[in-house]
Amino acid sequence: MATQGQVITCKAAVAWEPNKPLAIEDVQVAPPQAGEVRIQILFTALCHTDAYTWSGKDPEGLFPCILGHEAAGIVESVGEGVTEVHPGDHVIPCYQAECRECKFCKSGKTNLCGKVRAATGVGVMMNDRKSRFSINGTPIYHFMGTSTFSQYTVVHDVSVAKIDPIAPLEKVCLLGCGVPTGLGAVWNTAKVEPGSIVAIFGLGTVGLAVAEGAKSAGASRIIGIDIDSKKFDTAKNFGVTEFVNPKDHDKPIQQVIVDLTDGGVDYSFECIGNVSVMRSALECCHKGWGTSVIVGVAASGQEISTRPFQLVTGRVWKGTAFGGFKSRSHVPWLVDKYLKKEIKVDEYITHNLALAQINEAFHLMHEGGCFRCVLKMA
Amino acid sequence: MATQGQVITCKAAVAWEPNKPLAIEDVQVAPPQAGEVRIQILFTALCHTDAYTWSGKDPEGLFPCILGHEAAGIVESVGEGVTEVHPGDHVIPCYQAECRECKFCKSGKTNLCGKVRAATGVGVMMNDRKSRFSINGTPIYHFMGTSTFSQYTVVHDVSVAKIDPIAPLEKVCLLGCGVPTGLGAVWNTAKVEPGSIVAIFGLGTVGLAVAEGAKSAGASRIIGIDIDSKKFDTAKNFGVTEFVNPKDHDKPIQQVIVDLTDGGVDYSFECIGNVSVMRSALECCHKGWGTSVIVGVAASGQEISTRPFQLVTGRVWKGTAFGGFKSRSHVPWLVDKYLKKEIKVDEYITHNLALAQINEAFHLMHEGGCFRCVLKMA
Ligand SMILES: NC(=O)c1ccc[n+]([C@@H]2O[C@H](COP(=O)([O-])OP(=O)(O)OC[C@H]3O[C@@H](n4cnc5c(N)ncnc54)[C@H](O)[C@@H]3O)[C@@H](O)[C@H]2O)c1
Ligand SMILES: NC(=O)c1ccc[n+]([C@@H]2O[C@H](COP(=O)([O-])OP(=O)(O)OC[C@H]3O[C@@H](n4cnc5c(N)ncnc54)[C@H](O)[C@@H]3O)[C@@H](O)[C@H]2O)c1
Ligand SMILES: [Zn+2]
Ligand SMILES: [Zn+2]
Ligand SMILES: [Zn+2]
Ligand SMILES: [Zn+2]
Repeated sequence: MATQGQVITCKAAVAWEPNKPLAIEDVQVAPPQAGEVRIQILFTALCHTDAYTWSGKDPEGLFPCILGHEAAGIVESVGEGVTEVHPGDHVIPCYQAECRECKFCKSGKTNLCGKVRAATGVGVMMNDRKSRFSINGTPIYHFMGTSTFSQYTVVHDVSVAKIDPIAPLEKVCLLGCGVPTGLGAVWNTAKVEPGSIVAIFGLGTVGLAVAEGAKSAGASRIIGIDIDSKKFDTAKNFGVTEFVNPKDHDKPIQQVIVDLTDGGVDYSFECIGNVSVMRSALECCHKGWGTSVIVGVAASGQEISTRPFQLVTGRVWKGTAFGGFKSRSHVPWLVDKYLKKEIKVDEYITHNLALAQINEAFHLMHEGGCFRCVLKMA
Repeated sequence: MATQGQVITCKAAVAWEPNKPLAIEDVQVAPPQAGEVRIQILFTALCHTDAYTWSGKDPEGLFPCILGHEAAGIVESVGEGVTEVHPGDHVIPCYQAECRECKFCKSGKTNLCGKVRAATGVGVMMNDRKSRFSINGTPIYHFMGTSTFSQYTVVHDVSVAKIDPIAPLEKVCLLGCGVPTGLGAVWNTAKVEPGSIVAIFGLGTVGLAVAEGAKSAGASRIIGIDIDSKKFDTAKNFGVTEFVNPKDHDKPIQQVIVDLTDGGVDYSFECIGNVSVMRSALECCHKGWGTSVIVGVAASGQEISTRPFQLVTGRVWKGTAFGGFKSRSHVPWLVDKYLKKEIKVDEYITHNLALAQINEAFHLMHEGGCFRCVLKMA
């Protein structure tokens, strides 16, 4: 390819400072070094983690940076030693790497690969601990090892999932974060069994994916809890069978759910990021076996609490990152499931905009009617 | 038997008021009603739950009462409809019932039988919601459905484990609480696998039983943490391979353990009842899979807390009651394991006293050198 080995100048949305509108800039993207892959991003969605770091509330957020981590594209070129993907491959960049070699990958117990985290956690690439993005010589930090709000990005090879090229990239970009997180929370983390009673706190994209996962796992009742009743209509299509709006009740919401279920639910999922709801989600679980999974990401410094008696009497408190899916292994599998119509993806996309409209897209996230907004990059 | 159907007058240690010395009284013990069993208690040990309720700090404690829940004896008589035990059977009364019929028993997921809890929780028997103990007509409350600080007690039939009569009752009385709790926390609740690294906070009877359980499960390293270094010598005999006294370190104890173990332990157990140690026990677990089990019972009203990130990055927080053992099914099995010398029991017993010395026995519990003190009842 003509661009291979060259610096590419392209458009990217740059977050220069917390909480200031993103600026569409001409960014220089350096060629991939050893173990790196340069990807032309074709479609990216927005997720709450982007908004959180952008807001300045994330103490580990580094500026200026290029946000974005839920996307799909095509490999433009690869660095030395990269053997598993080639130029032209259709891929989903994954913020959760999978090296298959580290203590985590080899444990068989977790998807939290540790290989490149020391670099991605501080916005650089592992090879030289530098960024591949710059604007007239000023380096721009990477974000989550993905930085998909750019027409081209560079990621570590252990963070690239190669997918079936017939999959529509404008849809399957969602398989980079929210949808797998919800499905995996049910299938991998909670391991919901047929007949289970499930409660889902928060019916955004993640909560809806939990609902779909629970339905496919054979849950007998799926109780959706949201303070925005407008979510209930959409949620029905994802398998939610009952709705509770905490605003309609004077009792604590955990008590409402316990009363509705003769003692509590078998599994609950917090898909909001609110520590007080995390407590409710635990405490609405059935004594003896109820398991609560924290999926939402709380603001830095916030803490969860409960009486230890809740655990001594058999409840289990867990959490999940990327739904426990191993990214390179499972994202292609999820794409195949989508192609076989076994999981929904299109139905989460409520808005389609262009990269230039990214600030508008961020505003949309705060509106109840928006689940996922997908940006066309080119 | 001559006593069958009759009120029996015998000695019992009565807690008339919180925090006042127990009084050895002549107590009238009514005959067992339908579904009840009257047991001659031959040996009882003391456990922290007795001391906690006696102290008055337990808001659900009822006075006057007869405490005690770690004991062994012989069935004196049975009430109507009792078929599984008969006069003369050697038994261990179990504060955790097992009815095999309720939602809990049938779930296959928990040992927390719900059958008689509504009665035992308020110090009475289920049949007539009254006590079988009285002194000159004044009713004395039952405790934990066992009340073993009496030469005779009445318990529900679902709370009686029939054991091999060759087992020495002065030893196997310990299988009524602390030892099964520790072993079961490892075997049933955590399900420790061979090669695991284990941390145990608190090396009393429960912590030592965790150590023995972990050793038999094939743990590769068993790290014992106690603020009383005198415990370390005994703990070696139970399988603890390394010792840490938090007082020897300036760093938070979770950091000390993480540093010792290249990232944290696979399983941790809190065997103290201190909510701040419960947090340390969770946070010293390895990212991705470390599981922490709360075994200690905290004082009423106290809460545990942590950052939700601890769970989102793969740690699991659990608890256990009676080690997850189903009492009637598993206590006889544990007795058999003891008889086959597969588990220790004798080694926890540091003191032997008579019922009349029960106040002295309570004092001993606060001394580092006392693990279990067994009282001879007759
Ligand atoms: N663990 C992971 O790997 C992972 C991955 C992706 C997203 N997340 C997190 O999951 C969470 C959900 O993401 P999303 O995209 O679905 O968000 P979203 O904002 O679209 O959905 C959140 C929903 O919660 C509802 N809500 C807010 N407060 C509530 C309350 N007190 N009680 C009940 N409902 C309430 C809102 O009305 C909304 O419908 C976020 O915290 C996000 O950061 C975690
Ligand atoms: N969950 C259950 O079913 C169950 C059953 C039985 C007992 N328990 C509880 O288990 C706990 C332990 O029982 P036990 O009989 O072994 O008690 P114990 O008092 O004999 O042992 C506690 C140990 O913890 C140590 N310790 C105290 N504070 C410490 C600290 N800050 N850091 C480190 N070590 C500390 C003490 O020195 C002691 O060795 C109690 O809370 C008891 O109520 C629970
Ligand atoms: Zn995301
Ligand atoms: Zn790895
Ligand atoms: Zn006890
Ligand atoms: Zn039962």
